Amino acid sequence: MSEMNGAESLVRTLHNGGVDVCFANPGTSEMHFVDALDRTGLMRCVLGLAETVVTGAADGYYRMAGKPACTLLHLAPGVTNAGANLHNAKKARSGIVNIVGEHARQHLAYDAPLSADVEGASDVVSDWVRTSRASATLGTDAAEALAVAKSHPGKIATLIAPADLTWSPGGVVAEQAPEETIPRVDDAVIDKAADLLDGDGNTAIILSGRVLGDVEALKALARIAGATGARLLSPTSNRRAERGAGVPDVTRIPYVVEKSLELLGDLDNAIFVEAPAPVGFFAYPNRPSELLPPGCRELTLAGFGEDGSDAVIRLADHIKAPAYRARRRKAPAAPGGVPINARSLGMALGAALPEGAVVVDESITLGRDVYGNCATAAPHSWLSLTGGAIGAGIPMATGAALGAPGRPVVNVQADGSAMYSIQALWTQARENLDVTTVILANQDYAILKGELTKVGANPGRSALDMLEIGRPPLNFVQLAEGLGVSAERVSDAASLSRAIRESMDRPGPHVIEAMIDQ
Amino acid sequence: MSEMNGAESLVRTLHNGGVDVCFANPGTSEMHFVDALDRTGLMRCVLGLAETVVTGAADGYYRMAGKPACTLLHLAPGVTNAGANLHNAKKARSGIVNIVGEHARQHLAYDAPLSADVEGASDVVSDWVRTSRASATLGTDAAEALAVAKSHPGKIATLIAPADLTWSPGGVVAEQAPEETIPRVDDAVIDKAADLLDGDGNTAIILSGRVLGDVEALKALARIAGATGARLLSPTSNRRAERGAGVPDVTRIPYVVEKSLELLGDLDNAIFVEAPAPVGFFAYPNRPSELLPPGCRELTLAGFGEDGSDAVIRLADHIKAPAYRARRRKAPAAPGGVPINARSLGMALGAALPEGAVVVDESITLGRDVYGNCATAAPHSWLSLTGGAIGAGIPMATGAALGAPGRPVVNVQADGSAMYSIQALWTQARENLDVTTVILANQDYAILKGELTKVGANPGRSALDMLEIGRPPLNFVQLAEGLGVSAERVSDAASLSRAIRESMDRPGPHVIEAMIDQ
Repeated sequence: MSEMNGAESLVRTLHNGGVDVCFANPGTSEMHFVDALDRTGLMRCVLGLAETVVTGAADGYYRMAGKPACTLLHLAPGVTNAGANLHNAKKARSGIVNIVGEHARQHLAYDAPLSADVEGASDVVSDWVRTSRASATLGTDAAEALAVAKSHPGKIATLIAPADLTWSPGGVVAEQAPEETIPRVDDAVIDKAADLLDGDGNTAIILSGRVLGDVEALKALARIAGATGARLLSPTSNRRAERGAGVPDVTRIPYVVEKSLELLGDLDNAIFVEAPAPVGFFAYPNRPSELLPPGCRELTLAGFGEDGSDAVIRLADHIKAPAYRARRRKAPAAPGGVPINARSLGMALGAALPEGAVVVDESITLGRDVYGNCATAAPHSWLSLTGGAIGAGIPMATGAALGAPGRPVVNVQADGSAMYSIQALWTQARENLDVTTVILANQDYAILKGELTKVGANPGRSALDMLEIGRPPLNFVQLAEGLGVSAERVSDAASLSRAIRESMDRPGPHVIEAMIDQ
Repeated sequence: MSEMNGAESLVRTLHNGGVDVCFANPGTSEMHFVDALDRTGLMRCVLGLAETVVTGAADGYYRMAGKPACTLLHLAPGVTNAGANLHNAKKARSGIVNIVGEHARQHLAYDAPLSADVEGASDVVSDWVRTSRASATLGTDAAEALAVAKSHPGKIATLIAPADLTWSPGGVVAEQAPEETIPRVDDAVIDKAADLLDGDGNTAIILSGRVLGDVEALKALARIAGATGARLLSPTSNRRAERGAGVPDVTRIPYVVEKSLELLGDLDNAIFVEAPAPVGFFAYPNRPSELLPPGCRELTLAGFGEDGSDAVIRLADHIKAPAYRARRRKAPAAPGGVPINARSLGMALGAALPEGAVVVDESITLGRDVYGNCATAAPHSWLSLTGGAIGAGIPMATGAALGAPGRPVVNVQADGSAMYSIQALWTQARENLDVTTVILANQDYAILKGELTKVGANPGRSALDMLEIGRPPLNFVQLAEGLGVSAERVSDAASLSRAIRESMDRPGPHVIEAMIDQ
């Protein structure tokens, strides 16, 4: 039997498969992992002060690095704390390997204080869950989890490791699974899409997944659009979009159901590329869930598991679309010293973005115009809240900075959502990450006020008390400084734009509290 | 069909059953509840900036008020965010009714961003879960959920309400379930316990549940102990213990396995009263999970579902134990201006506690001596971390203050654990609650350093980086002020004791950052 304990075999197997970052919030049942990570020195270990930081960071890391990190979580409560950002990562189809410690097997018979259903908690937010059964197979289990996480699209793989397996000898470093080949789309489907584009009616190509983050694929789509008049659309929220000057623009389907119905209402054909048919975030009385008009023909050119980039490049060639020519578009102008609102915020950000910036967007209500305003800014990557579980932004920005070294990250962050995971600022300070967080301080759950209006109510004090967060006012400058991050407050759009640019030029994290004009 | 919508029938049913506080973090799918709560004005609605605040507060509320509050949570991510403190509440056997919004049923077919397994997420942290099936039965479902939450011992009841049921008419306010009678223990069991106490050997009575919070029952136990020489012990962590001058003392079984083995090693008999047989928090190589010595006779006098108070009072009378006489014990003396450590912390708190104080203890490593030091302080209630999922303290203190109006609350709070749910301070400010939070700033996950030592490792930088939280230092004065709560920092035990006393004499919340001498 090998002398290596189970924990070390797991760490070595993951590292052999390319995992070199571990986002961690360990507890007692993970101490042998902590020890193995320490002794081997194979991974950068990044501590989060709460589990939602850990998993949100792993999501942001995957979106930028294009490969999974691992997380280290403590028992069932660790998984539930981590759950909302795992939900977001799962909806983004990001790849993550969660390592979750469980009580030693002989301890499970007792209802110890921390005993609970780890597998059940993991099932809710994972694509793949396994509890290891022997020290000798922790390595092969880890290799399988990593293969799942790395597949196309990415997946959440959760490996539960009873503590006795981690401390016992007999660990074996496992072989890596062979690299998966991403299936190409059949020629027949390309033909069908070409026929649809050649026919009558208004056509939209709705894209997400890796395609939206692949500039070459976007150029092929722009060729198709140019040749056929098809519109390019994306879902409201996407894992990663490449955007900015020289990159073809893709229109985002709005969050508000009425606006998306208006945008999509005249469509006769919809072609999906690594994207779902558009549906509302929520259902409302007397509103449809499906946003495409009745009778609209639907064709999936490439499913989530297929190679959408290859498909659109082949389609562009198949229809003999002319070569791509970038349209010249005016870069965003910096705003003057006007109050900060949805419009001036977009101008301030668009003018300030340096080339290669990464935007992490949890701007919710106020940011709905920001996306459009940044379309002509310097080329950048845009990461958004894919699962609707707020509290993703600050953790995701943390992980994105680690996944894209040398690229400055700006996190456009609603205040209410910031308060779910404000703890992540501390990790940014600890790791000295180049993240600028712009807090949109409107002191409201503004999105919910909009939703309450749809209920048709004339809200009273008790309702407003559940939607307004300005009593007492949150002071994000103090909160940031308390977490070790420098901070400032700005009240006009010109100052905001300047502050963003200055912060992105400086190393290390910084918080800008943008006081919103209501 | 009634004009009342489903949401209103649910709110009215719960209120008729005595629920008048709703801890809330609503989203779009709960807007009709927000509207119903607003229109009826029947409940005090308390907003938390994150779901873990909401459920931790509901736990603290139950422990003090002795009746359930309801919570309002948003879809599966809301439940996962709420999960860790529901886990703690479940282990405390607190009663809570969770109301969780779900997508309208017609929307479930679509993989909308927030779609996920709400029932699965709820199952992990609830004793009872139901998804309502009609507007007309939301009321009866609520009545059943409330009956479950109110049962003895308390339970976590989670009712999932699809949005279309909440907005549709046809709601019916349901009858309340009849009050449950708590089963009394058979005379035969009382006889057996009397025989055990009459026999040879060392006997401990291990108690928890409601008994530990019932002064009359504690006096009966003290009579039994006085008459028979039995020791009174409690588990490490308990929902609520009544303590202080005039209240019989119960020794807490230590967290550290070696120390508890030492305490329990000479026992021949153990009698359980609403308490489990003691087991370690965690298993370790070559250490037992069960803490009672092999061969120790075990007898359950009263199970969790039985009336332990009645049983111990009958037992005391049955063995003709002499009447209770309070022992005079020296009150804790205020410490001098010495550094703050485990010992001086206990003195500082013990001397400062006013009569009727509520102590919320998430002191973890540093607080292990505090409990003993406060045994002779003015009479007070002590609430501890029952499920081991850290981040309970600040939320629980928030709810305890609402559940015990007029009684000052002091939360002895480890710094690392504080950072899981620091957001709860804002709710304390918003509701102007009399909570004093003493942050034990040792800048460590000190408990985990102890655990890593047990692994036998000589930890390197990478391991320590996952256990030390002092880089950058957290500034709890700034964090508190950023959340709207006044704060100060103290560095010696005399100042700490004075600061605690002054804060408890003042209305409203206050944070004291106690700089620990390492």
